[in-house]
Amino acid sequence: MAKLLALSLSFCFLLFSSCFALREQSQQNECQLERINALEPDNRIESEGGLIETWNPNNRQFRCARVALSRATLQRNALRRPYYSNAPQEIYIQQGNGYFGMVFPGCPETHEEPQQSEQGEGRRYRDSHQKVNRFREGDIIAVPTGIAFWMYNDQDTPVIAISLTDTGSSNNQLDQMPRRFYLAGNQEQEFLRYQHQQGGKQEQDNDGNNIFSGFKRDFLEDAFNVNRHIVDRLQGRNEDEEKGAIVKVKGGLSIIAPPERQARHERGSRQEEDEDEKEERQPSHHKSRRDEDEDDKEKRHSQKGQSRRQGDNGLEETVCTAKLRANIGSSPSPDIYNPQAGRIKTVTSLDLPVLRWLKLSAEHGSLHKNAMFVPHYNLNANSVIYALKGRARLQVVNCNGNTVFDGELEAGRALTVPQNYAVAAKSLSERFTYVAFKTDDRASIARLAGTSSVIDDLPLDVVAATFNMQRNEARQLKSNNPFKFLVPPRQSEMRASA
Amino acid sequence: MAKLLALSLSFCFLLFSSCFALREQSQQNECQLERINALEPDNRIESEGGLIETWNPNNRQFRCARVALSRATLQRNALRRPYYSNAPQEIYIQQGNGYFGMVFPGCPETHEEPQQSEQGEGRRYRDSHQKVNRFREGDIIAVPTGIAFWMYNDQDTPVIAISLTDTGSSNNQLDQMPRRFYLAGNQEQEFLRYQHQQGGKQEQDNDGNNIFSGFKRDFLEDAFNVNRHIVDRLQGRNEDEEKGAIVKVKGGLSIIAPPERQARHERGSRQEEDEDEKEERQPSHHKSRRDEDEDDKEKRHSQKGQSRRQGDNGLEETVCTAKLRANIGSSPSPDIYNPQAGRIKTVTSLDLPVLRWLKLSAEHGSLHKNAMFVPHYNLNANSVIYALKGRARLQVVNCNGNTVFDGELEAGRALTVPQNYAVAAKSLSERFTYVAFKTDDRASIARLAGTSSVIDDLPLDVVAATFNMQRNEARQLKSNNPFKFLVPPRQSEMRASA
Amino acid sequence: MAKLLALSLSFCFLLFSSCFALREQSQQNECQLERINALEPDNRIESEGGLIETWNPNNRQFRCARVALSRATLQRNALRRPYYSNAPQEIYIQQGNGYFGMVFPGCPETHEEPQQSEQGEGRRYRDSHQKVNRFREGDIIAVPTGIAFWMYNDQDTPVIAISLTDTGSSNNQLDQMPRRFYLAGNQEQEFLRYQHQQGGKQEQDNDGNNIFSGFKRDFLEDAFNVNRHIVDRLQGRNEDEEKGAIVKVKGGLSIIAPPERQARHERGSRQEEDEDEKEERQPSHHKSRRDEDEDDKEKRHSQKGQSRRQGDNGLEETVCTAKLRANIGSSPSPDIYNPQAGRIKTVTSLDLPVLRWLKLSAEHGSLHKNAMFVPHYNLNANSVIYALKGRARLQVVNCNGNTVFDGELEAGRALTVPQNYAVAAKSLSERFTYVAFKTDDRASIARLAGTSSVIDDLPLDVVAATFNMQRNEARQLKSNNPFKFLVPPRQSEMRASA
Repeated sequence: MAKLLALSLSFCFLLFSSCFALREQSQQNECQLERINALEPDNRIESEGGLIETWNPNNRQFRCARVALSRATLQRNALRRPYYSNAPQEIYIQQGNGYFGMVFPGCPETHEEPQQSEQGEGRRYRDSHQKVNRFREGDIIAVPTGIAFWMYNDQDTPVIAISLTDTGSSNNQLDQMPRRFYLAGNQEQEFLRYQHQQGGKQEQDNDGNNIFSGFKRDFLEDAFNVNRHIVDRLQGRNEDEEKGAIVKVKGGLSIIAPPERQARHERGSRQEEDEDEKEERQPSHHKSRRDEDEDDKEKRHSQKGQSRRQGDNGLEETVCTAKLRANIGSSPSPDIYNPQAGRIKTVTSLDLPVLRWLKLSAEHGSLHKNAMFVPHYNLNANSVIYALKGRARLQVVNCNGNTVFDGELEAGRALTVPQNYAVAAKSLSERFTYVAFKTDDRASIARLAGTSSVIDDLPLDVVAATFNMQRNEARQLKSNNPFKFLVPPRQSEMRASA
Repeated sequence: MAKLLALSLSFCFLLFSSCFALREQSQQNECQLERINALEPDNRIESEGGLIETWNPNNRQFRCARVALSRATLQRNALRRPYYSNAPQEIYIQQGNGYFGMVFPGCPETHEEPQQSEQGEGRRYRDSHQKVNRFREGDIIAVPTGIAFWMYNDQDTPVIAISLTDTGSSNNQLDQMPRRFYLAGNQEQEFLRYQHQQGGKQEQDNDGNNIFSGFKRDFLEDAFNVNRHIVDRLQGRNEDEEKGAIVKVKGGLSIIAPPERQARHERGSRQEEDEDEKEERQPSHHKSRRDEDEDDKEKRHSQKGQSRRQGDNGLEETVCTAKLRANIGSSPSPDIYNPQAGRIKTVTSLDLPVLRWLKLSAEHGSLHKNAMFVPHYNLNANSVIYALKGRARLQVVNCNGNTVFDGELEAGRALTVPQNYAVAAKSLSERFTYVAFKTDDRASIARLAGTSSVIDDLPLDVVAATFNMQRNEARQLKSNNPFKFLVPPRQSEMRASA
Repeated sequence: MAKLLALSLSFCFLLFSSCFALREQSQQNECQLERINALEPDNRIESEGGLIETWNPNNRQFRCARVALSRATLQRNALRRPYYSNAPQEIYIQQGNGYFGMVFPGCPETHEEPQQSEQGEGRRYRDSHQKVNRFREGDIIAVPTGIAFWMYNDQDTPVIAISLTDTGSSNNQLDQMPRRFYLAGNQEQEFLRYQHQQGGKQEQDNDGNNIFSGFKRDFLEDAFNVNRHIVDRLQGRNEDEEKGAIVKVKGGLSIIAPPERQARHERGSRQEEDEDEKEERQPSHHKSRRDEDEDDKEKRHSQKGQSRRQGDNGLEETVCTAKLRANIGSSPSPDIYNPQAGRIKTVTSLDLPVLRWLKLSAEHGSLHKNAMFVPHYNLNANSVIYALKGRARLQVVNCNGNTVFDGELEAGRALTVPQNYAVAAKSLSERFTYVAFKTDDRASIARLAGTSSVIDDLPLDVVAATFNMQRNEARQLKSNNPFKFLVPPRQSEMRASA
């Protein structure tokens, strides 16, 4: 990781223009936090097919970091209806597998039904749509500002997805409030209740709450060239019951997707991950029906040819075919690994270039019992740590040397560590795992203890004079801990027994 | 335009560092707009040679979008005195033709009087100055932060220029207030009256209001090495009468500019536009006197040689010779065109690279009676729509599904459509034309209806499940409207008669 | 400088993405300054080895410019203990010489002790650390956000260092308050007293104020694998007396640095400066002991080989070996020079690329008695002028033509000139010298008088019409002052005697 950091910093320097944090600042004094808390979601909205839980974005630690956090749970065959946000989102898949899609305006519809449709209705209509992606546990999904996003759980295991919305991003030209613009339904967008001075709700005469609800019927009838009945559906009127943001799909969705490889996705070996990546770079356009394999193969060839032609202008292969996810969950190829202490894997814009657009990155960590993440700070980013499994003791210190947090972070809770605040962690469980969302696409940390830490990188005499100690004491500070990031429990136990 | 958007998005991705919106955010809750209004200017300042009208920048919709709007009218032979602003400006020429100039510090004075001056006074003094440009109806002019700008109407038709000042730009390091720094005159800068807690006006003892007024006389006498009488003129003292920001030039300005092509400018055929562009890329240095054609031709040749030499270092040809205007008025080569519905033309930083510096772009649209612009939203920009001709019905919807505007926008009024808010329009006049200023240099829109819209790009089954409808209904939503942007009136009439 | 500006502007245009000011904006109305003052530091914190003086960052002119200013004085053998900030810093060395270091996480420890250590303690321990740099009077030192920085005075002359912290930088993701995170000691960070609603201090039970103080002892014992006594030192407990941010090093620091060239540093001829630069580009790893020259030479060779290998990947040679200082003090090669008037030298990201990361630049000027800097404004930056020697009369004018400052600026005081405000200066001393910190890495100025000024670059007829004057008067305005930046006193004296 030292290498990785050097690489990250250096790259940043080479490319210059990309290394400035492009986020906005917090309001005056917003970050004079004397206490930070490990927070659970404080609101819960049930839907037909699952639920969405939110953390109050007006909580001071989120206001300082200028982010909003939420957690969605999708039951089997549940679809999170398409929506877009006024700020970029980073979504971590805590559990489950499924499909997701994003609509990039202007990109081609590369997934097409084969010539011979078997559907009874619409013999001549062949559906086509933009790329659909598969996600699995441990994935980070990057959703740019204003891009419509949906996801779907086609498995038995409920999908749990943690989403960080970076309202402090300069891609958000509105105010600090996180906003969801739903394409359908009549549910309230999940952050609405946190708006100050909202109050305009009462006077509204439309039934729905989606972006079509506010248009007059005749506008939509003209725009879609459909009848009033369909427009009512569009506007979320007369919805049989309150379905909410996550709906149940009877019989499941039939999605045009390549057939064979799906099964493998769930195992998650490194080899498969590589295959994932290969797959994602090669546009593939296959219907997920087992009996169409032959058609598929032909189709794949012809369409690859087409995509190569599209690629000739050097343009469509970029955003339209960009990779939108990366797996950082208990990866077989962690960036930092110590068999006695744990593992850490990060995703930055070097791994997933779309993150450069979002100015976000993420880190997944797993610590063995009593193993420790040495005191460190984020140079250029705020960090929101969400505990996935187990619990750990964390300490966070501000610029005045005050302890702003000293407590347990347990699964399901989130803790904000503002930029430059020092933090350390020790696992209290057999396996403490977390994901940290970071508000820079090349978030860097500086370690304060261990080999190649800030202390170790200072001249011996400077350390001795700085801490008013003898040289041999300074030498101990610099070199007694031979580990870089994660200190194995033995280390601490040895000390305790000394 | 789908192509165009794809291109825009993809390019953005290729160049990465340039696709982050670099604007600032609005203050907390500034954008919780429950009502937006179509606004007329609310203030009017008469000048000797014309008038300047302003919209109150403290109006909530402008505070949310962080822009200021104004409209200047210049009579024949009127000169808008040079001024600069603390934020980038995009000016649309609603009517008229004339000259404009900007002073780029450090750029050479490339327009020179010929050797044999015929002016009585100053036989040996040969004037030289930086490039002067011609503008015509339909032009967008890009004025960077801090660059002194002037314009002049040499025709009979009054010039009407709409200016958007993007105070939310990160090029503005001061606060949100739009500021004009006048180089001359004693008129109040047009946005001064909107300043809160200003009040300092009374205690001032200087007569003028320009940037020289505040200096002591001796400083200016030394700095310019001129006498007190000239300094008084400089400071706007003893100005015979209150002339204001726009002055009348007796006998007209004599400007060093190439002679022949001017006449053609006013016709506006595509061919001429191309010539415009060619012309602008070739520095030309000619006096606008018809009798100097022969001198001119020689001069042009010698100076082109010089300019090629300058170009050798690869530097001066950039900002010093950058194109500062582009025509988007009822263009013969629109980006979107439907003979029954209308046309749209945009200018982004791909067409006019200087816009990348300003982080602004613009769109000009023209709709036939009852033609419709389908519901859509701006992905990455706020938009200020100014109606040029006719009137239309517009609807704007926020993230809660509330109608924040449902009314008429008529010529001369402006409407702000915040980022991500959905909007649709239907023309109520034979020809409704508008210009939309957008706060990103590659503003992208996402259409919500019609071919290749967000709905159309979703899988059929996702549409059906999302809107809780049958597949054949979803198919209608996806495919019934075969148009992409503009829906011809026939379409709507057909529906009405059905 | 006209060339320089053209070059700067043009380059900016070529590289596009780098020319947007990436700073944040001031709060609403924060910049409606009717009066600016020349300010002295208003607080003073004594340390064992020197003192730190601060200007109140809540002063309106600093709040508008979004910067914080401080001044550190280090006595002989004084070490400023390592600290990092939540915003980039530009430090100007007003007086003295010494060493400084920064720790870049992930960069290698390139300075190593030779094999045969002569230190009694730790025969086998060979110290190594990151690069150490020498500074001298007139240097600008660039300290990125979050990077730990220390400095040390090894000479008799006290070191005086002026530091601008750009809290408005988008690299600062916290609020506007400047923050120092000390690695050691129990002193209060110097800007703490300016925090509003702080008050949390009382309830703290830890003795120290550094970033280790807030961790529990057991965490640090584990993280460093050291005993409680050393941890107490680390946390700043039991410090014999209050030493403060600057400590005295008994017997002086022994730093691993190349031996011979140091002495020359203090003379400061251009030739030496060039050598400085060469030196800095060649990593050199030598102990500063005169008797090790032979060892050194061999070592240098072997290590250069290594560094070349590192360079092969094109990465480590960038941020890890980046130049972090440039000399702009009374330089023998000024950018602007007039033997009768004075000299000006600037440093931008073109000279010192790391400044592109910080988005800051600086200017050093020296004016002879009665020489004048013509009225001008900063196009794209706020400027904080700190007077180093002598005194001058300055005038600053805002957009309403009001004089916001007309007074003396004397050595030791600072004056903020906001973006686009006009400013002019006349020296009242034999030699008035200043340093101006600017909040853009390619800060450009536009001159309002003299050759190639904004006025001179306008067409003659535009000048005449703008200022309502005769052509021959306009000609005088354009051409009477033949100087570009600095007007020699003769000029003004001639006028006075006229």
